[in-house]
Amino acid sequence: MGRHDLEYPKEATNTIKRENDRAVYALKTIHNIVNSCQILHVSFNTSSQPFPVILPMIGHMGSFDRPSAGLGDPLDLYLHGYVSSRIMNLGRAGAEEGMPVCIAASHVDGIVLALSAFSHSYNYRSAVLFGHATLVEDEAERLYAMELITDKVVPDRWRHTRLPPTKAELQSTGILKVRIASGSAKMRTGSCHDDRQDMGNEAIQNEVWTGVLPIHQTMGEPVPSSYNRIDVPGYIAEFANEFNTDNKQHSLDVSRD
Amino acid sequence: MGRHDLEYPKEATNTIKRENDRAVYALKTIHNIVNSCQILHVSFNTSSQPFPVILPMIGHMGSFDRPSAGLGDPLDLYLHGYVSSRIMNLGRAGAEEGMPVCIAASHVDGIVLALSAFSHSYNYRSAVLFGHATLVEDEAERLYAMELITDKVVPDRWRHTRLPPTKAELQSTGILKVRIASGSAKMRTGSCHDDRQDMGNEAIQNEVWTGVLPIHQTMGEPVPSSYNRIDVPGYIAEFANEFNTDNKQHSLDVSRD
Repeated sequence: MGRHDLEYPKEATNTIKRENDRAVYALKTIHNIVNSCQILHVSFNTSSQPFPVILPMIGHMGSFDRPSAGLGDPLDLYLHGYVSSRIMNLGRAGAEEGMPVCIAASHVDGIVLALSAFSHSYNYRSAVLFGHATLVEDEAERLYAMELITDKVVPDRWRHTRLPPTKAELQSTGILKVRIASGSAKMRTGSCHDDRQDMGNEAIQNEVWTGVLPIHQTMGEPVPSSYNRIDVPGYIAEFANEFNTDNKQHSLDVSRD
Repeated sequence: MGRHDLEYPKEATNTIKRENDRAVYALKTIHNIVNSCQILHVSFNTSSQPFPVILPMIGHMGSFDRPSAGLGDPLDLYLHGYVSSRIMNLGRAGAEEGMPVCIAASHVDGIVLALSAFSHSYNYRSAVLFGHATLVEDEAERLYAMELITDKVVPDRWRHTRLPPTKAELQSTGILKVRIASGSAKMRTGSCHDDRQDMGNEAIQNEVWTGVLPIHQTMGEPVPSSYNRIDVPGYIAEFANEFNTDNKQHSLDVSRD
C-alpha cells in the first residue's frame, strides 16, 4: 500500500481485534473486494421482529458526483432491487440520514489444511462496510447506478442491451445509495502453519497431508438462449477469459507462503 | 419435493413476497444450501452502535441429540470461532433464549443475459435462517460440533488430523449453537426471458447476445505445504473431484429451461 492511500479511520465499529495482522483499512482494497463480489450480503433491522435481516443483493461502489473517482477514493455503494421491496420501502421511509445497514463481501480462495484441525483455515478476502441507505430519487443518478450495476456483472454490457429503458422498467426498479460510515477488510494468504509440537511429531507428519486446496470461480462455456441469434461477442468472451485466468492465478498465488 | 417433506412455517419473518414462485420452505433444500456453502454470513446487533454487524463464519447444520437426523429433519446450526470474539461473548451473555441472529448462505450458478438489462438476472441458490444463538458449554457437544465443522470443509478430515485436541485448542475455540426459528430459500434456474415487445424487435434480436454464463467453484490441484511428506490421500482427491464435477454439472443443468 502506498504512503498516500486513503484508509477508513479505525473506530469502535470497524476495528478488527482478532488476528489483526490480517486487517486492512485501505479504501482501495476494501472497494475492490466489494466490486469483485457477485453477491453482497446486506443486513438491516425492521421494527417488527427481533432478528436482523440479511438480503443477498447486487451492488457496486461508485460516485455520481465525481464519476472519474478511482477505487481508492471515497465512494458510495449503489444497490438495486424491486421498487416496492421491503428494503426499498425502508430506505424511502428512513430518517433523513438513512437506514443503518451493514454490507459484507467475501471470497474463498482456498482451503488450508494443517496437521491439527484447529490450525485449519481458509484463504479468503472479506470486506465489511457500515453505512446509511437512502432511496435515490434523482433520475440521472438512478440511471448512472443502473448502468454501473449492469456493467459490474458483465463489463460493457449496458450499451450492448436494448436501450433506452422503458418507463415500466424504470418505475419498477429501486436504487439504494449507501453513504459509507466505515469499513474494513480481512484477508488470509499463504500455506498452513502448525504448532512446534505438531511439527516435531514424526508419526503425525508421516500421516497427515498438509497444504492448500486452491478454490476459484470458473465461468463455463456460454449457453445461448433458445432465441439467441448471434455468436458470443468479444466483450463477453474476453470477460469470461479474464475472469477464469485471473481467479485461477489468484488462488494459486495465495496458496504458498 | 415429496408430500411428507417438512417445511418451515410461513410467518411474517420468513415469507418471501417478491417472485414467490422462486421461494422454497422445505427444510431439506434450505439445509442443503447452508451445508454446501463455504462461508455463511451471520448478522447480529450490538448495543453500542446503530448498524447490524455481519461476520463471515464457517458453520454446519447438525443435531447433537439425534446425530442420525437427516437434512430434512429439524436441525441446529453450529458455528465456530475464537472463544473471546465479540459474537461468542454476546452468545454467552445473551438472554436465556439466546441472541437473535440471521444467517445467509448464497451460491451463484450463472449470469443470465437478456435483451433488456432489466431482464438480466443470476441463477442462484440462496437460503436465510433466523434463530437464537447460545454458547455451547457441554464438552461432548462442543467436540461433536468441532468434528462436524471440520468435516464440512473436507469430508472425513477430522479423523485424519492430529487427535485428540490439546487443552489449549479446546479452550481457545468457541462453539455457537443457533436454534432455528424460521427459514426460507430462494432459487432461480433456467435461461433468460424477455418481454414480448423486445422479442419482436428484429434489430435488437440481431444485435444482443442472450443466454447464460454458467459459473461454478473449481478446486485446483492441491498445493502441498513446505513440510508435507505424503501424497494427496484418496479422501481429498475424491472430494476435489466430486466438488468439481458436481458444481460444473449443476451450473450447466440450470443454464437451460
